[in-house]
Amino acid sequence: MDIATLIGIISGFGLILGSILLGSSLSAFFNLPGLAIVVGGTISATLIMQKLNVVLGAVSVAMNAFLVKTEPAERLIKIMVNVATKAKKGGILALENEKVENSFLARAIRMAVDGIEPTEIAYALQIERNSLVSRHETGQSVFKFMGSTAPAMGMIGTLIGLVQMLLNMSDPSMIGPAMAIALLTTFYGAVLAFLVFNPIAEKLVDRTNSEKVNMDVIITGIEGITKGINPRILEDKLVSFLAPKARKMK
Amino acid sequence: MDIATLIGIISGFGLILGSILLGSSLSAFFNLPGLAIVVGGTISATLIMQKLNVVLGAVSVAMNAFLVKTEPAERLIKIMVNVATKAKKGGILALENEKVENSFLARAIRMAVDGIEPTEIAYALQIERNSLVSRHETGQSVFKFMGSTAPAMGMIGTLIGLVQMLLNMSDPSMIGPAMAIALLTTFYGAVLAFLVFNPIAEKLVDRTNSEKVNMDVIITGIEGITKGINPRILEDKLVSFLAPKARKMK
Amino acid sequence: MDIATLIGIISGFGLILGSILLGSSLSAFFNLPGLAIVVGGTISATLIMQKLNVVLGAVSVAMNAFLVKTEPAERLIKIMVNVATKAKKGGILALENEKVENSFLARAIRMAVDGIEPTEIAYALQIERNSLVSRHETGQSVFKFMGSTAPAMGMIGTLIGLVQMLLNMSDPSMIGPAMAIALLTTFYGAVLAFLVFNPIAEKLVDRTNSEKVNMDVIITGIEGITKGINPRILEDKLVSFLAPKARKMK
Amino acid sequence: MDIATLIGIISGFGLILGSILLGSSLSAFFNLPGLAIVVGGTISATLIMQKLNVVLGAVSVAMNAFLVKTEPAERLIKIMVNVATKAKKGGILALENEKVENSFLARAIRMAVDGIEPTEIAYALQIERNSLVSRHETGQSVFKFMGSTAPAMGMIGTLIGLVQMLLNMSDPSMIGPAMAIALLTTFYGAVLAFLVFNPIAEKLVDRTNSEKVNMDVIITGIEGITKGINPRILEDKLVSFLAPKARKMK
Amino acid sequence: MDIATLIGIISGFGLILGSILLGSSLSAFFNLPGLAIVVGGTISATLIMQKLNVVLGAVSVAMNAFLVKTEPAERLIKIMVNVATKAKKGGILALENEKVENSFLARAIRMAVDGIEPTEIAYALQIERNSLVSRHETGQSVFKFMGSTAPAMGMIGTLIGLVQMLLNMSDPSMIGPAMAIALLTTFYGAVLAFLVFNPIAEKLVDRTNSEKVNMDVIITGIEGITKGINPRILEDKLVSFLAPKARKMK
Repeated sequence: MDIATLIGIISGFGLILGSILLGSSLSAFFNLPGLAIVVGGTISATLIMQKLNVVLGAVSVAMNAFLVKTEPAERLIKIMVNVATKAKKGGILALENEKVENSFLARAIRMAVDGIEPTEIAYALQIERNSLVSRHETGQSVFKFMGSTAPAMGMIGTLIGLVQMLLNMSDPSMIGPAMAIALLTTFYGAVLAFLVFNPIAEKLVDRTNSEKVNMDVIITGIEGITKGINPRILEDKLVSFLAPKARKMK
Repeated sequence: MDIATLIGIISGFGLILGSILLGSSLSAFFNLPGLAIVVGGTISATLIMQKLNVVLGAVSVAMNAFLVKTEPAERLIKIMVNVATKAKKGGILALENEKVENSFLARAIRMAVDGIEPTEIAYALQIERNSLVSRHETGQSVFKFMGSTAPAMGMIGTLIGLVQMLLNMSDPSMIGPAMAIALLTTFYGAVLAFLVFNPIAEKLVDRTNSEKVNMDVIITGIEGITKGINPRILEDKLVSFLAPKARKMK
Repeated sequence: MDIATLIGIISGFGLILGSILLGSSLSAFFNLPGLAIVVGGTISATLIMQKLNVVLGAVSVAMNAFLVKTEPAERLIKIMVNVATKAKKGGILALENEKVENSFLARAIRMAVDGIEPTEIAYALQIERNSLVSRHETGQSVFKFMGSTAPAMGMIGTLIGLVQMLLNMSDPSMIGPAMAIALLTTFYGAVLAFLVFNPIAEKLVDRTNSEKVNMDVIITGIEGITKGINPRILEDKLVSFLAPKARKMK
Repeated sequence: MDIATLIGIISGFGLILGSILLGSSLSAFFNLPGLAIVVGGTISATLIMQKLNVVLGAVSVAMNAFLVKTEPAERLIKIMVNVATKAKKGGILALENEKVENSFLARAIRMAVDGIEPTEIAYALQIERNSLVSRHETGQSVFKFMGSTAPAMGMIGTLIGLVQMLLNMSDPSMIGPAMAIALLTTFYGAVLAFLVFNPIAEKLVDRTNSEKVNMDVIITGIEGITKGINPRILEDKLVSFLAPKARKMK
Repeated sequence: MDIATLIGIISGFGLILGSILLGSSLSAFFNLPGLAIVVGGTISATLIMQKLNVVLGAVSVAMNAFLVKTEPAERLIKIMVNVATKAKKGGILALENEKVENSFLARAIRMAVDGIEPTEIAYALQIERNSLVSRHETGQSVFKFMGSTAPAMGMIGTLIGLVQMLLNMSDPSMIGPAMAIALLTTFYGAVLAFLVFNPIAEKLVDRTNSEKVNMDVIITGIEGITKGINPRILEDKLVSFLAPKARKMK
C-alpha cells in the first residue's frame, strides 16, 4: 500500500478520535442503532442500485487501487523499447517467446506475432481500453453513490431522533442528550462520506487515468513495432506521454 | 429479481422501521397529509414535466431493470461465434432460419441475410443503439427529477407546518409535537429520494451501460460475419469487451 | 394540452392548498410584499441576464411545449415512406406539388426538387437542426436560471424578515408571527422553483429530444430519397429510430 | 443598453429596498464592515484566482455585453449575400475595397482577396472563433467564481458575528441585534450573487452563443463566396442558422 | 508573483482579521484542536485519495502557477515568426543551433531538424500537449477535492463540539462559549476552501488554458515551418489565437 494512504487513514481517524477525547469519552460518540442506520442504509441503497457482483467487484477494484501499484509509465516505455529492439533485429516472430508481465502488452504482442493486421490490433486494443475505462467508471459510480447516500442516511437518522425528541419534551433535561444522539448519525454520515467513500472514488478516478496512459503507451508502441519503427525514434515518441521531469530523470 | 436488490429493499426499510420502533411507535411517524404532499407533489411535478406515456414508460423500464436480467456479454459472444461458424461453413444464407432470442441480433442477422450492405447494416444498428440509449436517458431523467423533487416537496411540507406552528404559539406544550409533524415531510422526502428514486435512476444508468456493451458486441460481430471473418479471430476480437477475469473464466 | 400536465398542475397546487387549509386559513399564507420580492426578484434577475425578446421567446416556446404536441415519429416515418414511394415512381420532380405539414420536411423536399446536391441538403438541414437545438437550450437555460433564482430570492426575503424581527424583539409574542411571515418567501421560492420553473425546464429538454429525433428521421429519409432508395428498405432503416414496441404496433 | 436590463436592475434592487423599507429603516440593513468583508473578500479571492488583466478584461467584456448589442444574424446574412453578389459579378478581387463593419468578416474578406486557399481561410477563422469562445469562457468563469464565492464570504461574515455574539451573551437584550447584524453579510452575499454575478455570468454565456452563430454564418458564407456560390443559394443555406420565425420576417 | 495575487491574499485575510478585531480579540478565533481537525483532516483525506508524489506534485504545480509567469502568446508568435524566417532563408537545417527557452518548442525544432515527418511531429506534440493537460487536471482535482473536503471537515468538527455541548448542558452559562468554539471549525473550513483551495484550483484551470494556447501556437507554427510556409502568412495565421486587441497592440 502507498505509505501516504496509510498515513492518511491513521491521521484522519486519529484526529477525529483525538478531537472527541479532548472533550468527552469515546463512548459518548458510539451509538449502535445510529451506526446501523447510516452504514446499513448506505449499503442497502447500493444493493438496490447495483447487482451484487458489481458491488463486490467495485470493492475489489478499490482494494486493488490501494494495494497494487500501477506500473510506472517510465518502466513500461523501457520495456516497449526493448521489445522494439528485438523485433527490429529478429523480426516480429522473434517476439514469440517474449515474456511480459503486463497482460495487455502480452495480448498486443501475441496478436502481432499471429500476424493480425495492425489496424485490427489497434481496434481490438482500443475496445479493451474503453471497456476497462467503463468498468472502472462503474466502480467509481458505486463509491460516488455511497458518498452522496451516506450523509443522506445520516440526515434521515437525525430526523428520526429529532421527531422522537420533539414528541417527548416533558422532561427538559433530556432534550440535550436526545439531540446529541440524534446528531450522531449526521456525524457518522459525514465521516463515512468524506474520509472513506469520496477519497476511494477519487482514488479510482486517478487509477483509471494511470491505466489509460499505460494502455496508450502500449497501443502507440505496438503500432510502431508492427511497422518496424526504429527503437530510438519510438522512444522519442513514447516519452511524450511523460512529464518533462520524468523524461529527464530517465 | 436480483437477490441483492431484494435484500437491499428489505434491509433499507427494515433499518429505518427498526430505528423508529426503538424510540417510539410507528404511528408517530405516520402522517397522511404529509405523505400526500410529498408523494403527490412529486408525482404532480413529474406529470407537469413529462407526457403521461413517458412517465408510465419510465416506470415499466425501471420494473424491467429490476425484474429482467440483461444477457451476460459472455453468453452473447458465444452466440456470435456460433453464428459466425455457421456463416463461415454455409455462407450468410445459412443463417436464414437461425433462431436467436436477442431481438437486436435477430434484426442484424435478418439484414445480413437480406443482402443489405455491411455499412448500411452498421448504420441502422447504430441508430437503433443510440435511440435506445436516448430512450433510457429519458427514463433516468424522470427518476432523477423525482429524486431531486421529493426532498423539495418535503421541505415545502415542513415550511407549511412551521408557519402554522409559529402562528399558534400560545400553548407552548404544543410546539414540540407540531414541529415533529412538520419535520415528517422532510423525512418522507429524504427516504423517498435516497432509498427509492435515486437508486432506481442509478440502476437505469447501469442497465443502459450493459445494453450498450451487448449492442456493441453485436454490431462488431455482425460486421465481421458479413465479411466472412474467421470465427476464432472474431472471438479474439469480441472478448476485448469483457473484463480480463470474465475472459479467463470462459 | 397533454391531459397529464393539467392533472399535474391541478393536483400539485391542490395538494399544497389542501395541506394549508388543514391547519390554517389560506390568508395566513398570503403575503403580498413577500410574493412581490420572490416573483419580481426572479423576473428582474432574468431580465438582467437575458434580452427581453429572448425571455418572451422562452415563454412562448414553453407555452408551445405544453399546448402543441410534437408529431409522433411513427407518423413522420409513414409520411417519409409515402414521399419515397412517390419519388421512386415519378422521380424527384414528382414531389414538386407535395404538400406536407412539417415545415422542416417541406424545406428538405423543396431543396431536393430544386436539384441541390444531397450533401448540401444534408449540410443545410444539419445547420437548421443544430440551430433549433441551441435555441431550445437558450429557452431551457432561462427556466433553469429562474428555477435556481427563485429559492434564492425566497431566502433573501426570509433574511430581510429575520433581521427585522431580530431588531424588534421587545414583544416576545410577536416573534412567532414575524418569523412565520419571514418564512413565507422561502415557501414561495420553493413552490415556484419545484412546481413551475423546474418542470418547465425539464419539459423543454424532453421536447428538444423529440424534435431532434424527428429531424434525424427527416434528414436520414431525404438522403435516401434523393438517392432513390427502395421505400421498403427506407422504412426498415427509419424504424431504427423507434422503440421496438412502437415498431410492432405499427 | 437593452432596456430590459435596465428595468431588471431597477426593479430587482427596488423590490429589495421596498421590502426593507416596509418593516424598518434602510440604515438597519447597512453595515460597513459586513459589506467590506463580502465585497472585498469576493474581490480578493478573485484576484488570487486570476491575473489582474484577466479580471479587468472580464469586467470590460461584461460591460460590453450589456452596452453593445451584437449584430443580429439576420442583418449579417444580408451583408453576406451582398458580398456574394459583388463577388459573383466582379470576381473575388472586386471585394478589395469592400468596407464592412464586422472585423471578423473584414478579415475573412481580406484573406479571400489575398488569394489564400479556402481551407486555410476556414482553418484560420475556426481558430479565431475557438479563441474567442475560450476567452469568453474565461470571462464567464470569473463571474461564476464570484457568484459562488460571494455567498461563502457572506457565511464567513455571519460565522464571525455569531461566534462573537455567543461569546458575549451576558446581556440577553443584545442577542437579537447582534444576530441581526451577523445575518446581514449572508444577505449581502445572496443579493450580490443572485442579482449581480450570476446574471452577468449567464449574460456572457448568451453573448458567446450569439457571437458563435455570427461567426459560423461568416465562415459558412465566405467558404461559399470563395467557391463562387450563387448568392440566392447562399442565402438559402445561411437562413438555416435563423429561427423559422426570423426567416419569415425577412 | 502576479502583484494582484499578493494583493488578493493580503486583502482577503486582512479583511477577515479586521472583521474579527472589530468585535473581539484574535485569540477568541484561535482554537488549536479545531485547526488540527480541519487542516489535518483535509490533508489526511487527500493522502488517502492520492499518491504522495502526486499531492506534492500538485503543490509544486500550484506554486509554479503563482510564481512563474507563462510566456505571453504574443511573444511566442514573434519567436515562431523569427524561426520561420530563418528556416525560409537557410532551410530547416539552419535551425540546428537555434536556442529557444521554451522546451516544447525546442523539442519541436529538434524533431524537425532530425527530419522526422511533419505528421509524426504533430502526433508526438499532440500527445505531449494532452499529457500536460491531463497532468494539470490531476493537480486541479487535488485542490478541488481539498476545497470540497475542508468545509466537510469543518462540519465534522462542529458536530463533535455540538454533541459534547449538548451532553453537558447543566451550566447554561457555558452553552454560548461552547457553541462559539464548535462553530470555529466551520469558519476555518469555509476560509480555507474559499480563500485558499478554490482560488488555487481555478488558477490551475486558467494556467492550463494559457499553456494549451501556447502549445497550439507551437504545433500550428512548426507544421507551417516544416512545410516552408511564408513567415508573413504564418504570422497572419498565428495571430488568430490572440484576442483582436492583443493583435493590434503588436
